Amino acid sequence: MESKALHIIKIGGNVIDNSENLYHFLKDFTALDGYKILVHGGGKVATQLSETLGIEPKLVDGRRITDVETLRIVTMVYGGLINKNIVAQLQRFGTNAIGLTGADGNFIRTKKRPVKTIDYGFVGDIDKSSVDSQAIARLLEAGFTPAFCALTHDGDGQLLNTNADTIASALAVSLSTLFETTLIYCFEKKGVLMDVDDEDSIIRDIDPAGYEELKEKQIIHSGMLPKLENAFAAIASGVKAVVIGKSDDLGELKNGRPFGTRLSK
Amino acid sequence: MESKALHIIKIGGNVIDNSENLYHFLKDFTALDGYKILVHGGGKVATQLSETLGIEPKLVDGRRITDVETLRIVTMVYGGLINKNIVAQLQRFGTNAIGLTGADGNFIRTKKRPVKTIDYGFVGDIDKSSVDSQAIARLLEAGFTPAFCALTHDGDGQLLNTNADTIASALAVSLSTLFETTLIYCFEKKGVLMDVDDEDSIIRDIDPAGYEELKEKQIIHSGMLPKLENAFAAIASGVKAVVIGKSDDLGELKNGRPFGTRLSK
Repeated sequence: MESKALHIIKIGGNVIDNSENLYHFLKDFTALDGYKILVHGGGKVATQLSETLGIEPKLVDGRRITDVETLRIVTMVYGGLINKNIVAQLQRFGTNAIGLTGADGNFIRTKKRPVKTIDYGFVGDIDKSSVDSQAIARLLEAGFTPAFCALTHDGDGQLLNTNADTIASALAVSLSTLFETTLIYCFEKKGVLMDVDDEDSIIRDIDPAGYEELKEKQIIHSGMLPKLENAFAAIASGVKAVVIGKSDDLGELKNGRPFGTRLSK
Repeated sequence: MESKALHIIKIGGNVIDNSENLYHFLKDFTALDGYKILVHGGGKVATQLSETLGIEPKLVDGRRITDVETLRIVTMVYGGLINKNIVAQLQRFGTNAIGLTGADGNFIRTKKRPVKTIDYGFVGDIDKSSVDSQAIARLLEAGFTPAFCALTHDGDGQLLNTNADTIASALAVSLSTLFETTLIYCFEKKGVLMDVDDEDSIIRDIDPAGYEELKEKQIIHSGMLPKLENAFAAIASGVKAVVIGKSDDLGELKNGRPFGTRLSK
């Protein structure tokens, strides 16, 4: 059976918080052929709304806690304001998007993080059975483009806050059984750089052997390590490639030119 | 061709603002057989959030105006907070709901109300071409239950505020070409009453001739008239029946007992 191509693209604050970046990204996203899924994080708006409402960010040991009030705010901002405005913009460009949380369609069911030393509050952890890939495939095949925000549910009526990078990765791994899946992370740099201070020193391709070499030579700086570890774990679990790049350059993909850094087997 | 049955049920503040009412309604909604669509209005939460944020409701000649700030709030509250919590609850009961605005799937495209004497702001008016019944049918047939909030879009990137009663009616009329459609309005009374002060004096069935008679005898009070006018207009446009009743009694439908007042040809 020949697999159909699927691109899963994750954007964060540096795209969402800048209306010009967002406009160009959504236009380039629309231009990409084949099945597509968008995953977006939160950006600054949730923090701003919390401040306006006088809700102090709750931190324990430097980790942010999702209490009842914070969950209300992220449900409004991620699930409502950001998600539905992205959908309306995508429709304008001709992408038939549907804005989703993991509760919609029961697409991503998670478990509330158990309390050990820290109670993270209403945070949902993804596991191997979280994503209903068959149900998402039905939506894709019915002609719709899912746009997921960083919310999931526990199946028992509770919405939960879940990291958008993790959602994107879990979707990619799960859907790689049905589609030839490429996972793209848009971030602030043009890719993995040979020289952190030189934006043009993009390493175009990295395979697991190359990754080991780059780690040994300490070319990959510490902040990139967890990103790349997770990427190669997704590839080992069936994702065809993980691409890390800047949203400005996404148009290059459509034009067949190199975009960001491509990690693959 | 035999049509499949579809129920479109609209709930407003008296269900949404009361967690016990909402719980029972969503349970009874789940128990109904066949294709279903939920439409919900706003409730008190948007007003409360506006007040907390110090945004004055903007009224012109007693009519509420949806300015930029108000649109932001209803997008957060209707599209995020209320809609996604309803979806999570429906999932808990086993309804595979997807929470939607009219922008999602391009399902309901409206036109910003033109400025005549009053500028209503970001309000979208529905016309005969607004609802994409084929696209909604694809979603229903893929196994999902749409839950619409009171937001639409103009197709050019702009979300718009649209009355939930009007959305429910437009969905019913449009989908009646594909399904045997019953439209149910849940409101604070048990139905159309012979005696406004007697909750048990429900008129069970009204046809157009009976409606004329009730109007002549002035049994139907003024507040009900526009509701019933719109209902009979929907029936004249193909909707099989419009039922008006109290959400508490929705379970009766499932049990084959009479529920509210049934308007039909």
